[in-house]
Amino acid sequence: MYYVDLNCDLGESFGAYKIGKDEDIIPLISSANIACGAHAGDPTVMKKTVELCKKNGVSFGAHPGFFDLMGFGRRNMAISPEDAKNIMTSQIGALDAFAKSEGVKLSHVKPHGALYNMAAKDKALARAIAEAVYAYDKSLILLGLSGSEMLNAAKEIGLPFAAEVFADRAYEDDGSLVARTKEGAMIKDEDEAVSRVIRMIKEHKVRTLSGKDIEISPASVCVHGDSEKALLFVKKIREALAKEGVEVRPLAEILS
Amino acid sequence: MYYVDLNCDLGESFGAYKIGKDEDIIPLISSANIACGAHAGDPTVMKKTVELCKKNGVSFGAHPGFFDLMGFGRRNMAISPEDAKNIMTSQIGALDAFAKSEGVKLSHVKPHGALYNMAAKDKALARAIAEAVYAYDKSLILLGLSGSEMLNAAKEIGLPFAAEVFADRAYEDDGSLVARTKEGAMIKDEDEAVSRVIRMIKEHKVRTLSGKDIEISPASVCVHGDSEKALLFVKKIREALAKEGVEVRPLAEILS
Amino acid sequence: MYYVDLNCDLGESFGAYKIGKDEDIIPLISSANIACGAHAGDPTVMKKTVELCKKNGVSFGAHPGFFDLMGFGRRNMAISPEDAKNIMTSQIGALDAFAKSEGVKLSHVKPHGALYNMAAKDKALARAIAEAVYAYDKSLILLGLSGSEMLNAAKEIGLPFAAEVFADRAYEDDGSLVARTKEGAMIKDEDEAVSRVIRMIKEHKVRTLSGKDIEISPASVCVHGDSEKALLFVKKIREALAKEGVEVRPLAEILS
Amino acid sequence: MYYVDLNCDLGESFGAYKIGKDEDIIPLISSANIACGAHAGDPTVMKKTVELCKKNGVSFGAHPGFFDLMGFGRRNMAISPEDAKNIMTSQIGALDAFAKSEGVKLSHVKPHGALYNMAAKDKALARAIAEAVYAYDKSLILLGLSGSEMLNAAKEIGLPFAAEVFADRAYEDDGSLVARTKEGAMIKDEDEAVSRVIRMIKEHKVRTLSGKDIEISPASVCVHGDSEKALLFVKKIREALAKEGVEVRPLAEILS
Repeated sequence: MYYVDLNCDLGESFGAYKIGKDEDIIPLISSANIACGAHAGDPTVMKKTVELCKKNGVSFGAHPGFFDLMGFGRRNMAISPEDAKNIMTSQIGALDAFAKSEGVKLSHVKPHGALYNMAAKDKALARAIAEAVYAYDKSLILLGLSGSEMLNAAKEIGLPFAAEVFADRAYEDDGSLVARTKEGAMIKDEDEAVSRVIRMIKEHKVRTLSGKDIEISPASVCVHGDSEKALLFVKKIREALAKEGVEVRPLAEILS
Repeated sequence: MYYVDLNCDLGESFGAYKIGKDEDIIPLISSANIACGAHAGDPTVMKKTVELCKKNGVSFGAHPGFFDLMGFGRRNMAISPEDAKNIMTSQIGALDAFAKSEGVKLSHVKPHGALYNMAAKDKALARAIAEAVYAYDKSLILLGLSGSEMLNAAKEIGLPFAAEVFADRAYEDDGSLVARTKEGAMIKDEDEAVSRVIRMIKEHKVRTLSGKDIEISPASVCVHGDSEKALLFVKKIREALAKEGVEVRPLAEILS
Repeated sequence: MYYVDLNCDLGESFGAYKIGKDEDIIPLISSANIACGAHAGDPTVMKKTVELCKKNGVSFGAHPGFFDLMGFGRRNMAISPEDAKNIMTSQIGALDAFAKSEGVKLSHVKPHGALYNMAAKDKALARAIAEAVYAYDKSLILLGLSGSEMLNAAKEIGLPFAAEVFADRAYEDDGSLVARTKEGAMIKDEDEAVSRVIRMIKEHKVRTLSGKDIEISPASVCVHGDSEKALLFVKKIREALAKEGVEVRPLAEILS
Repeated sequence: MYYVDLNCDLGESFGAYKIGKDEDIIPLISSANIACGAHAGDPTVMKKTVELCKKNGVSFGAHPGFFDLMGFGRRNMAISPEDAKNIMTSQIGALDAFAKSEGVKLSHVKPHGALYNMAAKDKALARAIAEAVYAYDKSLILLGLSGSEMLNAAKEIGLPFAAEVFADRAYEDDGSLVARTKEGAMIKDEDEAVSRVIRMIKEHKVRTLSGKDIEISPASVCVHGDSEKALLFVKKIREALAKEGVEVRPLAEILS
């Protein structure tokens, strides 16, 4: 039997601003990454998103990012490892407070946007992030890019971790994602995207942009839930997984 | 034997902006109220203030306020009870994350500024605040104005609470603070301020602005730590308390 | 011949957050109120909205609000008249900078949300707002609620002003809007809403909630542009105005 | 006769947070760079700082920075040239609004912190900044690092510009500042700092860290005003300039 987790970034609305079809996507995934009020999300949005996950019995984690609402946490910022550690801690705590108040438990932490991308390559930042999670609760799973420094850091300090892959992104030979600015970065054909995911799960292999096969071992697949098209793709991927005998399960069960 | 807690608002710096002589005041008090990143404080300031309290063995609590850094949380805002509850929850969690990461425990929660003042009189707001604390951790002490709706709400739902008094403020006959805009609102004579506090602790009485004696029963005295003069006054009050046989103890020990 | 202005709040997106069908509504109105980066809007959104108005030859003004993005400027805040004046000035200047850079001129200023509502009734706040506009550029038109203190203040200091009415809101006998929380506050029947507007423009009268006719003299009608339904209503009102011989013109032409 | 401008970053307080001895430093300088509400400053602080400059007859300009109050605009951010242009425009306008309301004129613009440093080396960013100023008002002087891409961009598009030097910083052979992290980056001896400035002004030369003499031609010297020590140094430099026959004049007079 094969298993995989499906994770999605959620709780990204802010005040009067709505982003994401959270109510529609939550029943389709196994792990929700909930924004924590820095790059997106506000306290009331956090509360409602935690409730929604609880109601649907879906695992959820904290999705901390830069304090850059205007840039949605997607702009690189020159932050010290110490500050990075502290913005992780405060955001994990902010979200966990709603979990605790609802009597449920956080399953994982996945940094967002530029913080995620920078920590994939920057050892000191990766270490700071892993240490923040570890110090807060060493049973939390760090969810990050397959082959990233962030997962290496988790491994080093003994924090549970999980590698995620992207159905719609091309890979370089070293296992990193092809930069969005590069030709061929996106897998636009949905059937191809689905086949690639199935192959990653069953064969632990992916064909890179250069045409080479590399090893990859996904615990989770990151999906999007911000448009009707995105929802349809998630349904498509779920059907394909079912047909191929791949069961969708939350991160914690895959790792255990 | 008499007991009283001395509490002070701390951790109010933000980035390059410094407020408060935290290192000097912490050894002089028994309870620190630490800002949680909304009206003041940032993640790195929270971290350092928690460390400082831990190092000095001083109890500390969360000091949540409005998301109004420009107004330092001192401007009334028309917030719904639901939103109030959620901004309490996220801020308590943000601060508690540093406590948890340092292996220490939060002792109490004291709302800040306009939120504190509004909740002293507004039953629905008071209830929302008490419920937020209770849902998060029902062993946390809610620290509020003596005779306020906030403490009434805590009592109603079974949350531990503690009444604080102000050495430098005059009281109305109903036990509320004389508005700052009113003549005689501030007790400017330091010796008088100290005598009043001693009398509140030992006789449970205070002379109001109108000249009447009313009942008051302080668990804690709120002091300031943002200037050399404030520090001197705290030293003065400590000496007077010692001389009068009043021991300074953290909130948790007074309530238990 | 009858004339009226149609105004709409625009430029309310922020970073990744989109609000409002600005491209669709701008060709249908004669005055755009553009958010200035406090309660909504960011510099790039301001720039694009000014360009859009310029391209469509539509008059536009500044739409300043409270620095409360989380509350979208809709929560009352206890702000001093001095601070109110200064947040008006900085926001008008921020928006005007894009107009100046594009070689076009601002026509008016309309405070937003809670600032607008508070200034409708609070004389000191109304005066501070009118003075801010006057000091910046005394040829700017202050757009406000018909019968409000804000328009009284403009009149007093010699600032051009224009009264707006709402098609979908009921009125009290004193000319104020019926509070949204009150039964009958909203005019839900679209045909009735249109007829009321036509009558206000042609007869200068409106039937209040209590059934009384009061005087009202609208220079402008405030419309919404945030949904398909809102756009259809604006088209409907434009058709009705045309049929009734009411021409849609920008504020400046109505006042001159 | 020799001339030089003395400029200082001011208006950096925010709400309850105070930074800078603005009242003391303003009478000692010829150009004030006023924060515009993004990395520092709020509308009321902007207003008061403009008034202070007006009262003292001191020229002032806008000092725009990143929207990163927590980092005081000192953290590099990956911002697009388009967004950079727009944050420049809105901030210049916000500050200019207070000048306009007070009947005085802005003399210059100097980007702040990380934006300043990034634009010293990044051509696209430098160009965006120069274009923002030019589009807003092509008579404004762009104040930037001697030898920077920012000044090159101003020259290219025909915007007046002025080169500033730092008394307390060492220079590399290419005219750039020695990175603060490098040994010898700061000129700690005050007499040496003063002599270096005098030499830059009179001989247009500075000795680099490697011991080489390079050409440098300062229109302005950047001084600090945030401590008693900083104020004393400004007084010292003023005395030395006077003794050496170097007159302190505002930027506009030096360029004209």
